[in-house]
Amino acid sequence: MKSSAGGYDVVVGGGAWRTLRRLQGYTSVFVLTEPSLWERWGSRFARDARWGTVRPLFVPSGESSKSLTRVERVASELLGRGADRRSLLVAFGGGVVGDLGGFVASTYMRGVDYVQAPTTVVAQVDSAIGGKTAVNVRAMKNLVGTFYPPCLVVSEPAVLASLPARAFQSGLYEVVKHAILSGPAFFRFLESKVATLGPRRTRSLETLVARAAQVKVDVVSRDERESGLRRVLNLGHTYGHALEEVTGYRRFLHGEAVAWGLLLVTRLAELVGVLDSAEGKRIAGLVRQGGSLPPIQDLGVEKVLGLLPRDKKAVGGRINWVLPERIGKVRITPEVPNTAVAAAFRQVQRGAWNE
Amino acid sequence: MKSSAGGYDVVVGGGAWRTLRRLQGYTSVFVLTEPSLWERWGSRFARDARWGTVRPLFVPSGESSKSLTRVERVASELLGRGADRRSLLVAFGGGVVGDLGGFVASTYMRGVDYVQAPTTVVAQVDSAIGGKTAVNVRAMKNLVGTFYPPCLVVSEPAVLASLPARAFQSGLYEVVKHAILSGPAFFRFLESKVATLGPRRTRSLETLVARAAQVKVDVVSRDERESGLRRVLNLGHTYGHALEEVTGYRRFLHGEAVAWGLLLVTRLAELVGVLDSAEGKRIAGLVRQGGSLPPIQDLGVEKVLGLLPRDKKAVGGRINWVLPERIGKVRITPEVPNTAVAAAFRQVQRGAWNE
Repeated sequence: MKSSAGGYDVVVGGGAWRTLRRLQGYTSVFVLTEPSLWERWGSRFARDARWGTVRPLFVPSGESSKSLTRVERVASELLGRGADRRSLLVAFGGGVVGDLGGFVASTYMRGVDYVQAPTTVVAQVDSAIGGKTAVNVRAMKNLVGTFYPPCLVVSEPAVLASLPARAFQSGLYEVVKHAILSGPAFFRFLESKVATLGPRRTRSLETLVARAAQVKVDVVSRDERESGLRRVLNLGHTYGHALEEVTGYRRFLHGEAVAWGLLLVTRLAELVGVLDSAEGKRIAGLVRQGGSLPPIQDLGVEKVLGLLPRDKKAVGGRINWVLPERIGKVRITPEVPNTAVAAAFRQVQRGAWNE
Repeated sequence: MKSSAGGYDVVVGGGAWRTLRRLQGYTSVFVLTEPSLWERWGSRFARDARWGTVRPLFVPSGESSKSLTRVERVASELLGRGADRRSLLVAFGGGVVGDLGGFVASTYMRGVDYVQAPTTVVAQVDSAIGGKTAVNVRAMKNLVGTFYPPCLVVSEPAVLASLPARAFQSGLYEVVKHAILSGPAFFRFLESKVATLGPRRTRSLETLVARAAQVKVDVVSRDERESGLRRVLNLGHTYGHALEEVTGYRRFLHGEAVAWGLLLVTRLAELVGVLDSAEGKRIAGLVRQGGSLPPIQDLGVEKVLGLLPRDKKAVGGRINWVLPERIGKVRITPEVPNTAVAAAFRQVQRGAWNE
């Protein structure tokens, strides 16, 4: 699959890395990645791209690499190795490497070209597409960042084979989110495949990742800078963010928090009467096929509700809820009573999604 | 004077701060500034802008504030004080505050609007115009930055009255540079005024600053992202940067290094035969009217030459010399023999500019 998102191509599929051969005219190429990932895939990546021997810049895996301190170190290393404004930076990794690499690219010598080569499900279907870059500041995740589109996104599904099962499954919840946004055709396809999916089954993965990535491409190519439409991508992320935050980002993988978020917002949509229960059951059913999630039963509803992310662009910081109306359609509205938000949380805590 | 640089207004003159009244629709306004500057001018600034009581964010004066560590602190403070994506940031200060404030604005929540309110000669005629933002990384000054235009630049010449004499004079050398780029009319005007200029004479300053700022506006409005034309602004900065670097940024104020740079490059242009000596004498004469500069006699020519900045955008990093051909015209060329570069340096070291 090859598609265009705001001026750059998104290539998904077996052999996607070979697309890198067409990039010409750079004074040098630098790959930002994590050590263990590079050990497993580096030589194949460099061979597919025909870049000869690549000496990558390594960052430790994990969220703590998304810091301004790390930006400083990477920029110094780039300078020390002779990177100039006509150098190309490649972010080869998951969301952390992609967000950090994009931010470095957008600010090193006031901006160099970069490529996203995502290696996780979440990154391939979501975070590597759209040109958002970010680092964390102690006060808040992703507080500092830029809108800076890559010149190319290359997603090779084969690389997903080395993901741990939990990380793989976590990424699939983002695919579920995209299926809800996309509509009945993709949703049905996912329902038919989900039981047989696994990191080693790259054949059906390829279609899946390509279709899910296309959903993101369609949204961001119409709204690069998050003026409105792009907010639909927050489906499941409102409760999800609060769950991550209340547990100090330690209990859930991002996709797992999104899974709970999807169950919760589906319930909420039913409670406020915008979603009928048959559709709600199908959504909950697909999420639950992912297996058991880290628990939310012990979390205090007031605490979670206090951490729901507020709209940074709006006066007073209201909450913009993205509610499913049916599979293929969501509604964005701040008009949701707090009582319903709390009730949905308590009901899902008690297992009410499967009533 | 009001002029437009790539979509935003540059307002120079008595009462310029009052232009801020027209900015509407922001959720909140935050002023980034230095303590002593704010103590002297803050209440007048807030009154002119009609912003009521402003509680500014302070950064220590000096180059060390242009760091990613400082970006992190300012971003955290902004968040703590409730700044959102519809907040307005105002950089009220000299080059350091302007570069830092612009960088914070370009990255806080992926970009908020900002105003440049420059308070030094250099910032008013040069650095606050053009949308370049930057912080230093240990490895190199301005290594990390963005192109991010302000929504407005407001320059009130009255504020220059509180500049120390040396800082004021240093800024005038940048005005000389702009006069060389501009042509005989502005050059002659500057020659006629320069002897009587001082920080307390704001009347003739106003015309001067406005005309000098216009030169920068003209250049950047035709070349926002430094593709070519903008390089003319490097006149005098090639040698100048090397002089700052070889002395660890301690001996010269930036404008003083530029003054030496102008003398040196004028001599160089004569040596390679692109500038006739009558024009060269006029340029050197105007620079020298600024009074004595910190010495360069003790600096080793080889060391200085080794630090000349190379073109980051070019293969091999050649040096793009900006040579005056006559007052009002420069030539950009890498075709300058090293022997001439060294000879010009030695001659100016020996005082050869006044032969």
